[in-house]
Amino acid sequence: MSALREVVRPTTIIEAPRLSHKLGIKLFIASETFQYTGSFKFRAAYNLAANVKADQIITASSGNFGQAVAYACRMLGKSCIIVMPSTSAQVKVDAVREYGGQVDLVDVKQISRADRVEALAREHPEAYVASAYDDPLVIDGNASLAAELMALNRPIDAVIAPVGGGGLTSGLVKGFADAGSGIEVVGAEPLLANDAARSFRAGRLVCNETEPPTIADGARTVSLGDYNWAILKEGLRQIVEVPDEAIKEGVRLLFSLANLKAEPTGALSIGAVLTAPEMFRDRSVCCVVSGGNVDPTVYGEIIRDA
Amino acid sequence: MSALREVVRPTTIIEAPRLSHKLGIKLFIASETFQYTGSFKFRAAYNLAANVKADQIITASSGNFGQAVAYACRMLGKSCIIVMPSTSAQVKVDAVREYGGQVDLVDVKQISRADRVEALAREHPEAYVASAYDDPLVIDGNASLAAELMALNRPIDAVIAPVGGGGLTSGLVKGFADAGSGIEVVGAEPLLANDAARSFRAGRLVCNETEPPTIADGARTVSLGDYNWAILKEGLRQIVEVPDEAIKEGVRLLFSLANLKAEPTGALSIGAVLTAPEMFRDRSVCCVVSGGNVDPTVYGEIIRDA
Repeated sequence: MSALREVVRPTTIIEAPRLSHKLGIKLFIASETFQYTGSFKFRAAYNLAANVKADQIITASSGNFGQAVAYACRMLGKSCIIVMPSTSAQVKVDAVREYGGQVDLVDVKQISRADRVEALAREHPEAYVASAYDDPLVIDGNASLAAELMALNRPIDAVIAPVGGGGLTSGLVKGFADAGSGIEVVGAEPLLANDAARSFRAGRLVCNETEPPTIADGARTVSLGDYNWAILKEGLRQIVEVPDEAIKEGVRLLFSLANLKAEPTGALSIGAVLTAPEMFRDRSVCCVVSGGNVDPTVYGEIIRDA
Repeated sequence: MSALREVVRPTTIIEAPRLSHKLGIKLFIASETFQYTGSFKFRAAYNLAANVKADQIITASSGNFGQAVAYACRMLGKSCIIVMPSTSAQVKVDAVREYGGQVDLVDVKQISRADRVEALAREHPEAYVASAYDDPLVIDGNASLAAELMALNRPIDAVIAPVGGGGLTSGLVKGFADAGSGIEVVGAEPLLANDAARSFRAGRLVCNETEPPTIADGARTVSLGDYNWAILKEGLRQIVEVPDEAIKEGVRLLFSLANLKAEPTGALSIGAVLTAPEMFRDRSVCCVVSGGNVDPTVYGEIIRDA
């Protein structure tokens, strides 16, 4: 892990007194928006790419994980193929390519991304097929954020982080638990994609029927991963189900009271405080802003409603 | 100065490989957008409020300096009166009040801000009337940023910072010079408000006729201050006159390639590289992003044109 901590950019700690006051909590923000490739995913991607024997990585990601794998592979002198829907925004395709990744565009009406990854894996039997969340190397990579937060030596009652596939929250839970820390981890999940909350209520892994239509595109996963669920069902303190309106309000508050550009998924933690204020009132809370990559049109529409 | 460095938030160093590549320079960003009150002005305001004997400060500022003075005075247990035009955006008035400042709204059609400050100074003879730039305490406060940049111990050929009244650039020049550093300071001034560039050409302080209409509202000053000019005419390496279109493009590039929310004045340094690329090509350049406080409507319109 020490090697990883020397490579990743330290998380950016942001004090925002006005936002803290507005939310009624003792807030600080751990922003991963200035991490390499603009999201926490680089922690996972680098840890994975550095620790697998394969010199090539294949993954399906139209978002932050694809960019992170591309950049990590470039840094490590490895290659990668990132499978993306042919309908992906050009800026996302460009980003992966600029970071050195090979983009494989698929018409998802003809072939699913998973099937395309499988076909590529047969073509490249030496390659490692990577999941963005359901992999111990991903979880360990994300645990590096927990180590950084503990090293701050400041009082933290709870850390709130977004839940999609569960990679980040399981990394935080594992990181704190391995160090014997009592810091609570609270998940912030879009209400429209609440498979994790439903899994907790059911006591077993529950899947969404289809990709959920939440604005938090980093949390449009169909379910938690198996590795993630095994950790979260034991160690996650609570999940707050955040309506899309509260996610957008989180984006706006980060803009206006913290000068922070966050992608909607990144604002889930603030949205969770807005949704369940009594859970956090007057407590020392670290809101993780997981990433900042958002289309300018989408972002402009959200902040225009301020 | 050491006391000041313990109070201010350290500048946020942001690496942005894609932006660096796009600009053709070895770039890093020193962002003051997460400084207390969202801009570098807190450095000056705190240094001033801490070092004057008066317990009350009066200043005219509809922007970042007003917020910074308000918050610095609150931290120091002092009071302040911030003179603002009655036409100021409500969010700016609210911000000063939330930071603990007393807002004095004036109808600038009836009485100029300077005249109102003078009247208030007669009412409060013990108070200190503060300039946002033309004051040695302001310059020394801003010099703390130079000290931080030198302490990074990384190669820096040039630091680019915005020029309005000249408070920041004169602070940087003085800070580097006092430490015997050879780091060049380059000013980035709006072409529409190019009094400093014209002053250099004329060899004497030249004023704009009226408040210039540039989108960089933090640089709409009528002229450099006398203290600032005395330092800058000896020590400023060069001024780049940046068209408003390049300022906006700077805002957009910081948004899309660095995840950084900058106010137009804060993007002047990137705009300077766009305007005079040959001056910086392949050099190690620190672009200071001086602040992030910008109206969401203005910001949304700028990034929509991406």
